[in-house]
Amino acid sequence: MAMGLLTQKLIAEAVGTMLLLATVVGSGIMGESLAGGNDAIALLGNTLATGAILVVLILVFGPISGAHFNPAVTLVMLAKGEIDFRAAIAYIMVQILAAIVGVILAHAMFDMALVQTSLKVRTGTGQWISEAVATFGLLTAILGCLRSRPEAVPYAVGLYITAGYWFTASTSFANPAVTIARSFSNTFAGISPADIGAFIICQIIGAGLAFGLFEVFNKPTENS
Amino acid sequence: MAMGLLTQKLIAEAVGTMLLLATVVGSGIMGESLAGGNDAIALLGNTLATGAILVVLILVFGPISGAHFNPAVTLVMLAKGEIDFRAAIAYIMVQILAAIVGVILAHAMFDMALVQTSLKVRTGTGQWISEAVATFGLLTAILGCLRSRPEAVPYAVGLYITAGYWFTASTSFANPAVTIARSFSNTFAGISPADIGAFIICQIIGAGLAFGLFEVFNKPTENS
Amino acid sequence: MAMGLLTQKLIAEAVGTMLLLATVVGSGIMGESLAGGNDAIALLGNTLATGAILVVLILVFGPISGAHFNPAVTLVMLAKGEIDFRAAIAYIMVQILAAIVGVILAHAMFDMALVQTSLKVRTGTGQWISEAVATFGLLTAILGCLRSRPEAVPYAVGLYITAGYWFTASTSFANPAVTIARSFSNTFAGISPADIGAFIICQIIGAGLAFGLFEVFNKPTENS
Amino acid sequence: MAMGLLTQKLIAEAVGTMLLLATVVGSGIMGESLAGGNDAIALLGNTLATGAILVVLILVFGPISGAHFNPAVTLVMLAKGEIDFRAAIAYIMVQILAAIVGVILAHAMFDMALVQTSLKVRTGTGQWISEAVATFGLLTAILGCLRSRPEAVPYAVGLYITAGYWFTASTSFANPAVTIARSFSNTFAGISPADIGAFIICQIIGAGLAFGLFEVFNKPTENS
Repeated sequence: MAMGLLTQKLIAEAVGTMLLLATVVGSGIMGESLAGGNDAIALLGNTLATGAILVVLILVFGPISGAHFNPAVTLVMLAKGEIDFRAAIAYIMVQILAAIVGVILAHAMFDMALVQTSLKVRTGTGQWISEAVATFGLLTAILGCLRSRPEAVPYAVGLYITAGYWFTASTSFANPAVTIARSFSNTFAGISPADIGAFIICQIIGAGLAFGLFEVFNKPTENS
Repeated sequence: MAMGLLTQKLIAEAVGTMLLLATVVGSGIMGESLAGGNDAIALLGNTLATGAILVVLILVFGPISGAHFNPAVTLVMLAKGEIDFRAAIAYIMVQILAAIVGVILAHAMFDMALVQTSLKVRTGTGQWISEAVATFGLLTAILGCLRSRPEAVPYAVGLYITAGYWFTASTSFANPAVTIARSFSNTFAGISPADIGAFIICQIIGAGLAFGLFEVFNKPTENS
Repeated sequence: MAMGLLTQKLIAEAVGTMLLLATVVGSGIMGESLAGGNDAIALLGNTLATGAILVVLILVFGPISGAHFNPAVTLVMLAKGEIDFRAAIAYIMVQILAAIVGVILAHAMFDMALVQTSLKVRTGTGQWISEAVATFGLLTAILGCLRSRPEAVPYAVGLYITAGYWFTASTSFANPAVTIARSFSNTFAGISPADIGAFIICQIIGAGLAFGLFEVFNKPTENS
Repeated sequence: MAMGLLTQKLIAEAVGTMLLLATVVGSGIMGESLAGGNDAIALLGNTLATGAILVVLILVFGPISGAHFNPAVTLVMLAKGEIDFRAAIAYIMVQILAAIVGVILAHAMFDMALVQTSLKVRTGTGQWISEAVATFGLLTAILGCLRSRPEAVPYAVGLYITAGYWFTASTSFANPAVTIARSFSNTFAGISPADIGAFIICQIIGAGLAFGLFEVFNKPTENS
């Protein structure tokens, strides 16, 4: 019996999101354990690994599922009519579950307790503005490349997050599934469960702003 | 009512220049705050972030406005007849304003005073030669790729600035709008207002030299 | 007399695998000797060098031999019917020998004893899971790109290993020939001979899982 | 009067080689001055800058002069019949002079004595093997990409040197003009004049080996 097309897409979203989180959390643990207390060096390793794996995962899974790995991306694709409502709900549920599995996998690789609760406080105006900016920039990268050179999306997203880890005060979570999953890790990449809600709200605002910006760019123009 | 084409281009220049400065200044703040006093490590993070965001922003906004983000680039395009005088003036004014907004945004993300005055002295012969060389190299990268492989411009510019942050004594401002805006930040990326003028003069000289070089390369040749 | 096509391919596998190991081991020695005891900084240099050389070697030797450099890759290509059994055996033997020659070459460049025995213990559940995940991810990157954008394979593999050095607890050997050869070096990149066997078993399991995943993706689908 | 085609090519070689050396030496000075004595961190900055500028310079000047910047490359192109003897001599003379000018420019940017004599000893078997391997690898990267995907040459060369700075004990000079010029700088990138000769001999041997390898790959083959 042939497999449903949606099932295939959901498998792609699951494997991709799992590997993304294994990388975000795993490289954070590696960086922190080797860097001898210098968080900038730990963040360099964390950045290189995350930026690099994003390029790979979008190259691989983009042609199968679109390689969202991110409810904010899925919601914008829903708003653009690129995905239907039922599939969008399935994507988002799979992204959240797979992200948590990725965190558990990172803990397993580093011989740590599989499920943890993060104590890392990430809150305050600067952090919230950061998440809105981070997600606005991420969606701008995606929508901008899709508009005129879609083959560059994997590189644009990897490079954008490379920058985002350094230029935003929150290190650019920019992804509600990633935010939820990272609350299950009391390591370099963690976030206290109490701080998740505000992050996700700001992420959705940022994604909405980028959606609005490209509505403007996609309007017909006249020379003036 | 349809939007004017120039308005759309100016929005692209504004958003791109704002995100560029948010990255330059934000990643400088992040680097300095994490690097424990080792400025080379801070500069590595600042470099990665700036080089990466430039690729992304030029991929995204290049097809809309040309992705100048830089009055020196706009002046060279004016000299080449690629943009008319009125549009060039509008581009430059938007670039300067958006650059300042980007600096303010970086300060907001890191919970700092929104408008600051830099005390960082950047002056002397070496710095001035650096800015001329930096801008000469930047325009050489742009004009060279436009001449024979325009699709490589985003990567060439990002990689050029990655190099420029390290090989010039001034860390390659190479952009009058960036220079003005960075005087509003008393952080890693700042420049004292008194030092702006000489930087901009040297940047324009460097841009002019690159323009002249490509006039030579674009002349008809004969085998000899 | 014309050279056999298989001979040409084996020369490509030999030169490529030798340079890969010279880079993995040589950059580890360089990193460790310069980093002043900070293993994260040593690993950054090791990562940059390994990721970069992989892109180059696959660009160069991909069109000649397929640029496997890795028995796990050759086995998956055998399972896919892309290479015949006799050639696969020859590939694997050449890969192992050339990998050892590459390690000796690294030692020669750094004026060290040419053949050494590593004392570095790499064992335990976390390490084994790491190697399965690392090899699963590597083959996913290769099979995914081959499926829809084969020209991106060199970049995907280089970037994947860049991530793998940081997100897996074992730093992603992900290659039985590399694993065997690194036991001949008592340096940063070494592995104790006693620990080789388990690593290779886990690598083959990971490769098999990726093969299975793409059997699923390559099945015909129906809309549901 | 139209300019001679060779003159135009020599201008391209001159500007490119000058900027290359300004980057190699300038980023070494910057790295050493900021890294607080940690040579691995200095080398990271030196590596990023050199790898990045090589991509840019080959993108820009490749379509004009071939972007050799390196007598070893020019000699191999002469052996392949891609350039005639008279032009090759002119290329090499311009490369050496421009490389020295680039070093002087780096010193000018950092307010140092313009012409210096390096005291850095780089000698011994390991260093010599390193230079032969480094240049063999560089020419392998170039000849390999030229053979089947010439548009990738800029990226392959930049990435190759990124690796070479770390995996060879000599940090991969791999270029006689660069070697001569770096003896004029008593900084991070310097080499004592007494050590130049052996380096250049090893570089030419390495280049010759790569030329020989691709003679083998370019021979007709038969299935066997």
